[in-house]
Amino acid sequence: MVEPGDLAALEAFEGLPPLEIWDRLQHNASGLERWSTRLATADPHRDLERAAAAGARFVIPGDDEWPAEVEVLDEAGQLTRRAGVPFGLWIRGRANLRHALTRAVAIVGARACSSYGEHVSAELSSGLADNGLTVVSGGAYGIDAAAHRGALAAAGTTIAVLACGVDVSYPKRNSALLSRIAEDGLVVTELPPGCAPTKLRFLARNRLIAAITQGTVVIEAAVRSGALNTAGWAEQCGRPVLAVPGPITSRMSAGSHLLVRERNAVLATNVADIIEAISPFGTNLTQPPRVAPTLTDTLDPDLQRTLDAVPVHNPAPTDRIASTAGLDVPTTQQCLQTLAALTLITQTPTGWRLPTPPPPSP
Amino acid sequence: MVEPGDLAALEAFEGLPPLEIWDRLQHNASGLERWSTRLATADPHRDLERAAAAGARFVIPGDDEWPAEVEVLDEAGQLTRRAGVPFGLWIRGRANLRHALTRAVAIVGARACSSYGEHVSAELSSGLADNGLTVVSGGAYGIDAAAHRGALAAAGTTIAVLACGVDVSYPKRNSALLSRIAEDGLVVTELPPGCAPTKLRFLARNRLIAAITQGTVVIEAAVRSGALNTAGWAEQCGRPVLAVPGPITSRMSAGSHLLVRERNAVLATNVADIIEAISPFGTNLTQPPRVAPTLTDTLDPDLQRTLDAVPVHNPAPTDRIASTAGLDVPTTQQCLQTLAALTLITQTPTGWRLPTPPPPSP
Repeated sequence: MVEPGDLAALEAFEGLPPLEIWDRLQHNASGLERWSTRLATADPHRDLERAAAAGARFVIPGDDEWPAEVEVLDEAGQLTRRAGVPFGLWIRGRANLRHALTRAVAIVGARACSSYGEHVSAELSSGLADNGLTVVSGGAYGIDAAAHRGALAAAGTTIAVLACGVDVSYPKRNSALLSRIAEDGLVVTELPPGCAPTKLRFLARNRLIAAITQGTVVIEAAVRSGALNTAGWAEQCGRPVLAVPGPITSRMSAGSHLLVRERNAVLATNVADIIEAISPFGTNLTQPPRVAPTLTDTLDPDLQRTLDAVPVHNPAPTDRIASTAGLDVPTTQQCLQTLAALTLITQTPTGWRLPTPPPPSP
Repeated sequence: MVEPGDLAALEAFEGLPPLEIWDRLQHNASGLERWSTRLATADPHRDLERAAAAGARFVIPGDDEWPAEVEVLDEAGQLTRRAGVPFGLWIRGRANLRHALTRAVAIVGARACSSYGEHVSAELSSGLADNGLTVVSGGAYGIDAAAHRGALAAAGTTIAVLACGVDVSYPKRNSALLSRIAEDGLVVTELPPGCAPTKLRFLARNRLIAAITQGTVVIEAAVRSGALNTAGWAEQCGRPVLAVPGPITSRMSAGSHLLVRERNAVLATNVADIIEAISPFGTNLTQPPRVAPTLTDTLDPDLQRTLDAVPVHNPAPTDRIASTAGLDVPTTQQCLQTLAALTLITQTPTGWRLPTPPPPSP
């Protein structure tokens, strides 16, 4: 009877236990007329039967499976007037929702993504699954589907949060994927069985994806997109937002770059970056890709200059090397001895040169 | 006689006027023995003649053309022991160096860049040149060459800062490009004519590129690269560092992403981002790519829900729309009137539907 994220309803119902709300709605109580239009078609028993037929259950606050994370929506998103903790969640799948969300990341992005985005979505999701994280997405084409597939391929847990009933295959061509997710992971929605998705339901659904996860990763997104809407919800929920960069020539990466430049999102280049961002401060820190310094990097400047002046092939005497290096002869002599001791150069009867590399193996 | 960026020399010469230094070196003064090895081959008159033959001049502090920006090197880079203001600069080209550097950006990156990097380097440089900025780079293959070419193609000013003499064509295959830069822009170096590049001269050259520009843009760079060295110099000089993102699957973009994640570089996605970063705080601000909200975005939630419930084709009566929208009938009735007034919906004898779009033009 109430649309997901209907703040006016939450205000009107504030403090009332669910059964009391239901009773008042049924009796068309004053102040609740607004939500009584659907009374004629509302049929909770039929909803539960349809859910059971689809292998789904209904979970409400207080149930063991209820994910405490969604309570953040009580505070978040008041500005957008499409917020609020859901009354309950319809769930399809064997896993325990609360357990599955202990360590969970949302991967979201464009439906019409590039092959780069699809590849990256699947790879990152597989990597997150390999690290025991649950991948949450929206079950749509493109980035979403690749994220679910990536997690499934790594035998990980994935959750599709829908904007329609658990028994509705939307989008159509993802129905096999959604069945697989329900088999190995979970399909979750606020909407009772049979409900079709609408534009506003997608927007309300996005708040759940952001709220139940420890962070949201945007892979490819246009500047105006559902993924950026989900990122906005993550910001409002106080969850980290990460954005995967891409070519600046690709419109699909514009949303990711905007998040980094304008909205302080963390640039995500690999699984470790994501794990770091969702971990408690100071834990799971990434090792920035840094090549170990070579021996020559650590040399003192005079040694470097001397080494730089030693010929590759034809040996040169000390005074010529000194002149090339721009150092006095005694200093150069000392440096050459040190470099020879480090086997970085070779002494020959006619002077110094670099060591001959071993012949290439045949 | 002194290698670029030789801090020991700068310390030994501190407070001495150049002619006094030269006199002391010639007389093998005590404490300066270290730099006397090249006395036999040093020939300033021959250097000046060779420069003149190559159409080059020598500019020293106090000259009209001397770029005050390099003085930053007096402070910067003490840690790396390869710093210091150059004694002078050899310059080839008609432009006035100081004028050309009034608004200048360094574009640096990998020699072995990808076609994406090459494309982006040329495009950004053309765009910077179109905005009257001078593009400074190192005259190398890859990103450098594309940056110079991009600026030349836009009839802008470009400066190649070399790690060898102005008359030395290095790298060989860029000699036509270097000639063109000397023709339409400037070729600049600290090293006298005839000098060959060395590894340490490249590193010392990088400090000049960073110092004489208002900001350094890294386009593609491996984690261990000259471009990151230049970025480090820009940081030490207090100049903004920008990094162009790319696919996370490309090793070539790893250096750019590292700069953003670990070293606070600004993500650069277009020319405006670069201009904003090098402009005084609060000026030349970018317009973040934001699509103007559509009329339907600005609608109040009840109007949005009503609009969302109006069928595309087959008209529906008010009570059915109310039920779909989850609103009471009077509210829905009001919303429908408003939406019709905004021409967002159409009333028919059997109910409401979305307006028929005009037929596509043939």
